[in-house]
Amino acid sequence: MITTQNNLGLYTDFYELTMAQGYFLNEKKDDSATFDYFFRTNPYKGGFTVFAGLYDFLEILSNFTFSKTDIEYLKGQGLKTEFLKYLNNFKFEGNIFSVSEGEIVFPNEPVLRVEGNIIECQIIESALLNILNFESLIATKAFRIKMVSGDTTFSDFGLRRAQGFGALHASRAAVIGGATSTSNVLAGKLFDIPITGTQAHSWILSFDDELEAFRAFAEGNPDNTVLLVDTFNTLKTGIPNAIIIAKEMEQKGHRLKAIRLDSGDLAYLSKKARKMLDDAGLNYVKIIASNQLNEFVVKSLLHDQNAPIDAFGIGTELITGKSDAALDGVYKLAVLNNLPKMKFSENIEKATLPGKKQLIRYFDENGKFYRDGILCSDENPEDIDTIFHPVYPEKNTEIASLKQQILTQKVVDNGTVLLKKINPQNIHKYLEERAQLLPAEHKRFISPHLYKVGISKKLMETRNTLVKKLKTLH
Amino acid sequence: MITTQNNLGLYTDFYELTMAQGYFLNEKKDDSATFDYFFRTNPYKGGFTVFAGLYDFLEILSNFTFSKTDIEYLKGQGLKTEFLKYLNNFKFEGNIFSVSEGEIVFPNEPVLRVEGNIIECQIIESALLNILNFESLIATKAFRIKMVSGDTTFSDFGLRRAQGFGALHASRAAVIGGATSTSNVLAGKLFDIPITGTQAHSWILSFDDELEAFRAFAEGNPDNTVLLVDTFNTLKTGIPNAIIIAKEMEQKGHRLKAIRLDSGDLAYLSKKARKMLDDAGLNYVKIIASNQLNEFVVKSLLHDQNAPIDAFGIGTELITGKSDAALDGVYKLAVLNNLPKMKFSENIEKATLPGKKQLIRYFDENGKFYRDGILCSDENPEDIDTIFHPVYPEKNTEIASLKQQILTQKVVDNGTVLLKKINPQNIHKYLEERAQLLPAEHKRFISPHLYKVGISKKLMETRNTLVKKLKTLH
Repeated sequence: MITTQNNLGLYTDFYELTMAQGYFLNEKKDDSATFDYFFRTNPYKGGFTVFAGLYDFLEILSNFTFSKTDIEYLKGQGLKTEFLKYLNNFKFEGNIFSVSEGEIVFPNEPVLRVEGNIIECQIIESALLNILNFESLIATKAFRIKMVSGDTTFSDFGLRRAQGFGALHASRAAVIGGATSTSNVLAGKLFDIPITGTQAHSWILSFDDELEAFRAFAEGNPDNTVLLVDTFNTLKTGIPNAIIIAKEMEQKGHRLKAIRLDSGDLAYLSKKARKMLDDAGLNYVKIIASNQLNEFVVKSLLHDQNAPIDAFGIGTELITGKSDAALDGVYKLAVLNNLPKMKFSENIEKATLPGKKQLIRYFDENGKFYRDGILCSDENPEDIDTIFHPVYPEKNTEIASLKQQILTQKVVDNGTVLLKKINPQNIHKYLEERAQLLPAEHKRFISPHLYKVGISKKLMETRNTLVKKLKTLH
Repeated sequence: MITTQNNLGLYTDFYELTMAQGYFLNEKKDDSATFDYFFRTNPYKGGFTVFAGLYDFLEILSNFTFSKTDIEYLKGQGLKTEFLKYLNNFKFEGNIFSVSEGEIVFPNEPVLRVEGNIIECQIIESALLNILNFESLIATKAFRIKMVSGDTTFSDFGLRRAQGFGALHASRAAVIGGATSTSNVLAGKLFDIPITGTQAHSWILSFDDELEAFRAFAEGNPDNTVLLVDTFNTLKTGIPNAIIIAKEMEQKGHRLKAIRLDSGDLAYLSKKARKMLDDAGLNYVKIIASNQLNEFVVKSLLHDQNAPIDAFGIGTELITGKSDAALDGVYKLAVLNNLPKMKFSENIEKATLPGKKQLIRYFDENGKFYRDGILCSDENPEDIDTIFHPVYPEKNTEIASLKQQILTQKVVDNGTVLLKKINPQNIHKYLEERAQLLPAEHKRFISPHLYKVGISKKLMETRNTLVKKLKTLH
């Protein structure tokens, strides 16, 4: 079990290690390399992606070492003694530059860059992709829900439908995206995020009747009573019984916090419930809804049907990023021993961008995100006046007069993590600030407008020169 | 990080703990309970589900305890001192009955049953659902691929696209379903499954040219050389260079094991590659294909297009169970203090089956799976001659003369795990044996035939009596 595994060097694909051994045996272990992390498509056919997972990945990186039994295991897999001695003392000592967690990013942008010797850059690839791809997927999903839920809060209820221990990363990412709490207690403890939860149908069934079950719960939890009203019949018994309990609580100076609807038509039932509660003078009792929710259902409930729902509990689709299963992020060699490298492809749109690069955001006259630009690292952003479409240079944008911001910062310096641990709720605040600056046409669910990302003239020339050279060679 | 968490009691939804505290404060902690695990729908619109995850769940159960810092954390969440003292010494001491891992099961069957006091039964719910739902989803996906890949093996390549640490459960379940190996080294070590991997595009790019990169790899790994041939141009450079290396290897008494195609049209390229290799006298060199595969693509490649592919590497869809994100398994109270319980619903098809139950499989005259039957635990299966449709009793089947098998066995006895650890490859062997007995019409991808699951007369009567009583009450 992973729970007893404190060294995470084996959390990698085997080919990373066979390649690393190859570099080692070919005396390339001190070759210097730069790799870029980027993705090619926004999830959910959306217009943007929320970058997340950085701090979780850096924690794994700090534990990316090999125990004695790990080394023995690898020996049994045919790796060579000399290389295993090297792994035995392995520790990542390179540099990492990254955009902040919670930043809004776009396809093909070098969101994160790793520099180091080729072995250390190579063997961390799988863990890096595993964590960044997944948390970015979930943070993006959560923020899509947040965009339409507005002041109606939502909580992550997904543990039971999550993909194994992926639940933990997912709960963290859900809060980055906008969930205000999670039902997952371990995620709450590990990441310092609020936890929520009251009772299930089994609680109700464990008493002789619903009213008795409600009463017992209210007595034990007078400050946090949420009553699940759909075990038998929501309108005929659940809500009437909840009203009786609310009145009893008032007598003792307490207040029923909320009822929860977990089945049936949530628009219809929430309206009926609101009226029944209000008619009983219980307008302070909130309505929580759960069951098969996603951003489209939430939007329909709140915007099209004016359902009087105060909070949602969201499970499967939030915690797994359904209907997408994964963000397609990749990690590609960009520089080796100071020479720019690229994966050349028949299709120039899929060719990678060679060399060490920086990512700049340009703002329009209203301070909104306008364009992103990918420049060579040795260019002074102040000197750049035009950025070009990566494939059609006749499409270009003057950016000389625009306010700009460098998005990447150093987060690991010679193996030392510089980044401080930030609470996921605070990362969400940063995301909210940034999202305010993203024009609405990139946020809509249906056919969002493409956010334009250009490259500098120098980067384009570097790439074109390399493409010509590769075409001659192959 | 979960990696430093050896106590897993917090791997639960908070409402399990608020309910448990409620049971405790209401002096119900010694109430005896029985819960059933079952799911309502086969994943992927398929005709069956492969049950998996049992042993992983039992390992979590053995660690389902609370550390000192866990207790402090829960104190901060408002749980009461008296109850926390109880949790501090908590250990699951109940019984669990389950079908075997690798068994083929169907919707609404009580696949697993937990018996114990109500608190211990309740608080393990989330972890149980989390692991069983996910591993069953992935094992089913893998077996769907296995059904069409036949002698063409496939390996799990999914770590980079997996849902965080869910990768580990997924690699195990993929092997249960039929993958012969994984790229995930830690999964290999933890679960004793074969690992595979050779090189990525970055290896090729780290050399001055492709031929040199191939040569260096072959020299370092003469017994396990697989060459990735699509970095520049598969047909013009990749395969010709691989052929040069294969010839060089022959000179030294070695053999090139395989080439790997990772882009382009795999049917077209594999046929061209096979011909080029054969023409060069290299008919022993295998062809491995990867890139965006699933059971439908594998079927099309092998069955419709006769692509000469010897092995597949499968990533995203295998490791995440795309296009389904989760199996919809639930865990429902069936007995409390010897009284049958059920969640009653407006819709009788969604009502749960009350009481302690057993699951029987009946075989036809050819020894194939014919029907499953759900009986009360206190019934002697030998005495049952008819099973009934759960909703329409006029539909029923005589089973008196049929060979039968009880599917559930005790796997935990008063908290002690009876089940021995079984290698996932051996679980797969069991699955293969069982799948031989499942008629073909339940295995097809498009509109599979419904496998019929009936209930005994006594169980039907127990349910109907309870429904009447509940209708009177509510």
